[in-house]
Amino acid sequence: MDTLVTGGTLLTMRGDRLGVVDDGAVGIEDGRIGYVGPAAEAPAPSDADEVVDASGAVVMPGLVNAHTHTAHTLLRGGAQDVPEIEWMNRALGPLSAHTDEADRVAGARLGVLEAVRGGATTIAEYASEVGTLVEEVYRPLGVAVVAVETINEVPDERDDLGPRELYPFEREQGDRALARADRLFERFGDDPLVTPAYGPQALDMVSPDLLQTVQSHAHERGAKLHVHTAQGEREAIQIEERYGDDASTVSVLDELGIVDDSLVAVHCHGATPAERRRLAEGGAAMLGCPSSIAAIDGIVPPVAEFREYGAPVGIGTDQAPGPGHHSTLREARTAATLSKVEQADPTALTAPEALRIATVGGAEALGIADEVGTLAAGTRADLIVVDTDRLSTAPAVESPLHTAVPNLVYSTTGREVRDVFVAGEALLRDGAFVDADPAAAVDEATERAAALYERASDDWRGADSALVDAVDDGWL
Amino acid sequence: MDTLVTGGTLLTMRGDRLGVVDDGAVGIEDGRIGYVGPAAEAPAPSDADEVVDASGAVVMPGLVNAHTHTAHTLLRGGAQDVPEIEWMNRALGPLSAHTDEADRVAGARLGVLEAVRGGATTIAEYASEVGTLVEEVYRPLGVAVVAVETINEVPDERDDLGPRELYPFEREQGDRALARADRLFERFGDDPLVTPAYGPQALDMVSPDLLQTVQSHAHERGAKLHVHTAQGEREAIQIEERYGDDASTVSVLDELGIVDDSLVAVHCHGATPAERRRLAEGGAAMLGCPSSIAAIDGIVPPVAEFREYGAPVGIGTDQAPGPGHHSTLREARTAATLSKVEQADPTALTAPEALRIATVGGAEALGIADEVGTLAAGTRADLIVVDTDRLSTAPAVESPLHTAVPNLVYSTTGREVRDVFVAGEALLRDGAFVDADPAAAVDEATERAAALYERASDDWRGADSALVDAVDDGWL
Repeated sequence: MDTLVTGGTLLTMRGDRLGVVDDGAVGIEDGRIGYVGPAAEAPAPSDADEVVDASGAVVMPGLVNAHTHTAHTLLRGGAQDVPEIEWMNRALGPLSAHTDEADRVAGARLGVLEAVRGGATTIAEYASEVGTLVEEVYRPLGVAVVAVETINEVPDERDDLGPRELYPFEREQGDRALARADRLFERFGDDPLVTPAYGPQALDMVSPDLLQTVQSHAHERGAKLHVHTAQGEREAIQIEERYGDDASTVSVLDELGIVDDSLVAVHCHGATPAERRRLAEGGAAMLGCPSSIAAIDGIVPPVAEFREYGAPVGIGTDQAPGPGHHSTLREARTAATLSKVEQADPTALTAPEALRIATVGGAEALGIADEVGTLAAGTRADLIVVDTDRLSTAPAVESPLHTAVPNLVYSTTGREVRDVFVAGEALLRDGAFVDADPAAAVDEATERAAALYERASDDWRGADSALVDAVDDGWL
Repeated sequence: MDTLVTGGTLLTMRGDRLGVVDDGAVGIEDGRIGYVGPAAEAPAPSDADEVVDASGAVVMPGLVNAHTHTAHTLLRGGAQDVPEIEWMNRALGPLSAHTDEADRVAGARLGVLEAVRGGATTIAEYASEVGTLVEEVYRPLGVAVVAVETINEVPDERDDLGPRELYPFEREQGDRALARADRLFERFGDDPLVTPAYGPQALDMVSPDLLQTVQSHAHERGAKLHVHTAQGEREAIQIEERYGDDASTVSVLDELGIVDDSLVAVHCHGATPAERRRLAEGGAAMLGCPSSIAAIDGIVPPVAEFREYGAPVGIGTDQAPGPGHHSTLREARTAATLSKVEQADPTALTAPEALRIATVGGAEALGIADEVGTLAAGTRADLIVVDTDRLSTAPAVESPLHTAVPNLVYSTTGREVRDVFVAGEALLRDGAFVDADPAAAVDEATERAAALYERASDDWRGADSALVDAVDDGWL
């Protein structure tokens, strides 16, 4: 046995509860979980090359950050507190238009390190040319990634279109992106830490024919389709203009045969409850990004509602500009807190439910739950050790209830994550990265951001968002 | 000069914006701010006994946690995810009834250390026999406190009353509490870090005559009245029963002459917008606890709304069971995020506005803004240094906007707080406590919590809250 993690409270997430084991142990061998259960029945510590003392801590599956665009982390602080209609085109857009590949890699590295520092072991990365981020960021760091290649047919220059003017579709652009997505399976097919997926960006940005073609490629490879679904007014108007006044994103997806168990529907805050139920009953999974949608749209995404429909549900941090962070535990807290005020019910999305969403829920939604999201013998050893004896999380008692469970969700800063293992390899030990150099990542990102903002400053000012007013008014 | 903090971005909070000074410096002498302004014009570092390099960081006024009951921190994780009607009497109550003074001190120490670790320099502590917490926790730690003595006339044993049965009032109990409050001014009158205040708990728990008597004592001493105001259904029913069907908390407070600039109205989520406006126009300040009221009631308190009325507004963390934490930066983020979804407007309560509420806003509401809440020459040197070059907060650029401002609110974990000074004394240096022993505080709290839950377990189970069901159902 390579490693024995012993003495902690296990949250195995097996079954349909948290699978709590007091004074438990996890044995790791060849990157996989060899033993999980009571410490008293575990293999002897003397049989392990290394013993990790997890007393005063929780041992649980690595967190799953199920939907992110980490390249935008370079622009953290550059787009928030603006009207929804301005966020993309007048706040983020004028900055992101000036990023180059090295900027995007530097931003992704910052965001991924932040996510891992907070306990994420699997990240679903949604990007154009996502393979570059896999090669440059994920594989060197040893972090598991669901690599979603963005596919759309809409040329970047569409700023002069009114909201009721249809986006032009350029099929060649879409086909090139589809080819890039297909190639991910060849490039990374032998890497168990990389799960390629297709990312038809949204129904207003892809033609029906290409969407169905993408779906057939996905079916062929047993892969998922991640689609931003019903994510706002702009999309709703495009769908009406293209498909008729009665059409909605979900109704068109349904007619096109896209609603099945390969569909991963992201956001969904613009769908009606009936449409959301239809997605769930059709087999689709749902990914919610509560901090992001609250920050950008002022809306609570239907995470708790989808869970009630029995659909697999995960949570993600989306992008740093707006919500600000890539911490999955913080996202769990935000999901629970926002669900309570949305439903005017303090019992909505409880702490244990939020912890399931942040682990096994995300894994199920991403289609990787056979390997990820639970502590089970024979699965990949992606797990974390989180101290519960810190100022922010104490006191942890085991009876009459495990206070560590609510405290992990409502109290943790994320910095209580002590050890992070992916496939048995320690990425983080005692809160410090084993190989990665976070200070260098911060320095590079800061230098690149300063240069980027200088390049983009005139365009950013010219776009005249509410942020520009805030600067001129002395607020920022 | 004792200390020169130099090279950071200052957020002075002077004027009605953030008072940003790039590459600024703060000089501290005899516990007070001697210089604040550009580093280039500051006294020479060689004139300072100690120089703190704040490059890559923000230097700002210490955070003000404007409403808390930290003794309950011992019960963190013991009461959440239950219906509002159960939270006090069936979840928290059966546990808190078993606490003794040493438990409450241990809980308060844990909560106060957590708050200081997250950058709070002033905490408004609301407790019965608050003087004990001042003596045992605040003064030994050197943390500034607004000490609010709880005053009510309702005996503890009222569990068998139906919701429409009036609480009995015991005037003697109220008078004893008032006397304790009065004594705070003698006990701590010569300590500049202690600001006593009166805490008539809520209108349903104090008779009109006692309330007016308390107000006259407060007026005499230039002190504030902190009143939980319109905090829920149970209170509203009691007010109707006692004062008539048309009566509400705010209407009765107004008729009794309590609405003036000595009133600090806490929560206010049960008041109508017209009543809230009346409070603000009457001179009252407002304290909101967004995480707590979201967790316990599923409601967003009217923090953003009060700000629009021009009232002084602060935020507090209330108590750990429910919201979970005592981090003022986390509370600022929660206030902003919840305000956005409440108003369905992503521009509601922006990051810079939230930072003002967490500092000068709280100080104004508590009546201590002449000394606290801004960086101004001649005021007390309560200030913090927060790194903005961490994985969670980078990149910080200064142009065309200060990304550190949104990143402090939306991105920080709270653990980026590096240095904390109160009256010029360093409580925290490089993230470590100078004198206090947080591990000992955690250990004591954990031991006491374990013993407490054992003592209280039968009563807690007997109260049969939704948490008991969750345990029996295998969730906790």
